[in-house]
Amino acid sequence: MGAGQSDGRPTVAVVGATGAVGSVMIEIMNARESVPWGEIRLIASPRSAGRTITVRGVEHTVRALSPEAFDDVDIAMFDVPDELSAEWAPVAVERGATVVDNSGAFRMDPQVPLVVPEVNGSRVTRRPKGIIANPNCTTLSMMAALGRLHEEFGLRELVVSSYQAASGSGQEGVDRLRAEIEAVAGKQVGDRAGDVAEALAAAGLPEQSPFRAPLALNAVPWCGSRKEDGWTSEELKVRNESRKILDLPELKVSATCVRVPVVTTHALAVHATFGREVSVEQARRSFEQAPSIVLRDDPDAPEGPDFPTPADVVGAEPTYVGRLRQAMDFPNTLDFFVCGDNLRKGAALNTYEIAETLVSHSSVGE
Amino acid sequence: MGAGQSDGRPTVAVVGATGAVGSVMIEIMNARESVPWGEIRLIASPRSAGRTITVRGVEHTVRALSPEAFDDVDIAMFDVPDELSAEWAPVAVERGATVVDNSGAFRMDPQVPLVVPEVNGSRVTRRPKGIIANPNCTTLSMMAALGRLHEEFGLRELVVSSYQAASGSGQEGVDRLRAEIEAVAGKQVGDRAGDVAEALAAAGLPEQSPFRAPLALNAVPWCGSRKEDGWTSEELKVRNESRKILDLPELKVSATCVRVPVVTTHALAVHATFGREVSVEQARRSFEQAPSIVLRDDPDAPEGPDFPTPADVVGAEPTYVGRLRQAMDFPNTLDFFVCGDNLRKGAALNTYEIAETLVSHSSVGE
Repeated sequence: MGAGQSDGRPTVAVVGATGAVGSVMIEIMNARESVPWGEIRLIASPRSAGRTITVRGVEHTVRALSPEAFDDVDIAMFDVPDELSAEWAPVAVERGATVVDNSGAFRMDPQVPLVVPEVNGSRVTRRPKGIIANPNCTTLSMMAALGRLHEEFGLRELVVSSYQAASGSGQEGVDRLRAEIEAVAGKQVGDRAGDVAEALAAAGLPEQSPFRAPLALNAVPWCGSRKEDGWTSEELKVRNESRKILDLPELKVSATCVRVPVVTTHALAVHATFGREVSVEQARRSFEQAPSIVLRDDPDAPEGPDFPTPADVVGAEPTYVGRLRQAMDFPNTLDFFVCGDNLRKGAALNTYEIAETLVSHSSVGE
Repeated sequence: MGAGQSDGRPTVAVVGATGAVGSVMIEIMNARESVPWGEIRLIASPRSAGRTITVRGVEHTVRALSPEAFDDVDIAMFDVPDELSAEWAPVAVERGATVVDNSGAFRMDPQVPLVVPEVNGSRVTRRPKGIIANPNCTTLSMMAALGRLHEEFGLRELVVSSYQAASGSGQEGVDRLRAEIEAVAGKQVGDRAGDVAEALAAAGLPEQSPFRAPLALNAVPWCGSRKEDGWTSEELKVRNESRKILDLPELKVSATCVRVPVVTTHALAVHATFGREVSVEQARRSFEQAPSIVLRDDPDAPEGPDFPTPADVVGAEPTYVGRLRQAMDFPNTLDFFVCGDNLRKGAALNTYEIAETLVSHSSVGE
């Protein structure tokens, strides 16, 4: 165990403790007693330093980000923008910490494992840079389910379309969607682009938005930044991160990422082709045995079909899976719908679970 | 030409003239002068009979549905529920009319052509039952684009996920979504299922809804009724109608249909595999030459990426296509996003275009 332990208990730091994901992280630490941390250190920008936040019943004062803030830290969980992670994660490592980073800065670095504990948790022990990356929230929302099926049936191909929540764009995204919904609600506002734009302007909303088009009463097929050949960064992340996590460098993937007017929880329609034959019954059994998956899939329930929707999953830790169908025209292929809270399993929770895995492997500070 | 013509001009009837699609049909007849109809006859349920509606500057009194209402009619356009079409379309045919039916009653009948004029318009001449069917609105929203690509590159496989609008469930669906949006707007309503349900109950909304779950701030992966093996009626329509329209009985199709909180315009994320090599540039050229398709696809535009969203397409006649990408890992495969106004091209407009095609083939009443 690392240098910062007191009574054998490791010291953990939450970097970005006052942000949207950081706040969920603290909720999770309050709810989960799994790791008896020694010291809990909250770190944020100098602007937020000095604020107090109660964690596990004890009031903590937020410290400003500085090299010294990482002294004696065993595990530093980073929930900050890419450029801050790129700059500060190596500083934390140099001071002796193992970093679990939720930014995109290190995910595709071959010397940095990209970890979903229930899929490839053992990878936490091989971290030559002292950094472990947490996947992108869209990839993560389907990865527990896909990892499970891959283990049993051997994943070969993946065609996915996403239904992504506004909070994937942070608090700014949530605020924008809420304001847009308010602007178009109950006023007989038309649903043509011009009508919506007019309503948003009348409500005083700036034209500048985290989204590339109005999101209220709409669906916006553009998430992230533009990459080569018409792809978005989000779509390439789904492809590249899925390949890395599942250790399938040749996995065939096509993704179309679309933002929908949902506040929290990403959903994905998944068309997955396997190397071996797979039935709906086999897949259901597989999911039922997975502790981090909730199966809600009963099309023939007497009270009407049961399936998960994003609203059902907000605040929940597991991934919800439903609408399982055997593709009629594609051999060894399942179609299904999966929902994951993008702030929890998609971000804070998985980061925390990586930290838990590190502690249980007793490999911190080795 | 048929018996009802006056001065060689055919008589047309709109059955269901006072419904949601019927109203759009009358808008279209006002906007399009393509066919100089002789008589225009508006027909609806006895409840709506006697109402007056102005078409092309002339006030028309709505007639009650009856066998005699079809006397001397050349073309009867039906926009009524399946069971009414099943009962009344044969009556209209018996009285001498050719029926263009927008219900699901006859679509898969092998003796009834299923027509999208720009894809298989010539099929209107072979109608042994005197009935031509208009496809389901979800299928229609992508069919102009797919028909175009199929003609050039030979379609083989289709994986689609839909983003379907509330108006696909009729005026009832629109009213419900509007009421739900109003109930959750601007009140710091949480986005968990329980919070939303509470807000809807507090706003006095009945639990009974056209949707299987709250739609505001949500996405509902269930459209239509339950069919075998976990599929919905909507998903099977996408498969079976695509096969029939494109005359590809072996076409491989998997569809996942999802309702989103959009009022009008269905969107689809399409992953289409062809028999021949296809590039984004070739596909763009193909779409640019199609009069019924608007291409909005410029990921590298200086002011930021350009693509269509449902709001851009409300009230528009063409199908909008964008986000064209060559699938990285699948040969001969394109990914794209397509939007079509489900009340226009998806319903009233295509029905009307079938009627126009009938007239231009001068085959009415033959």
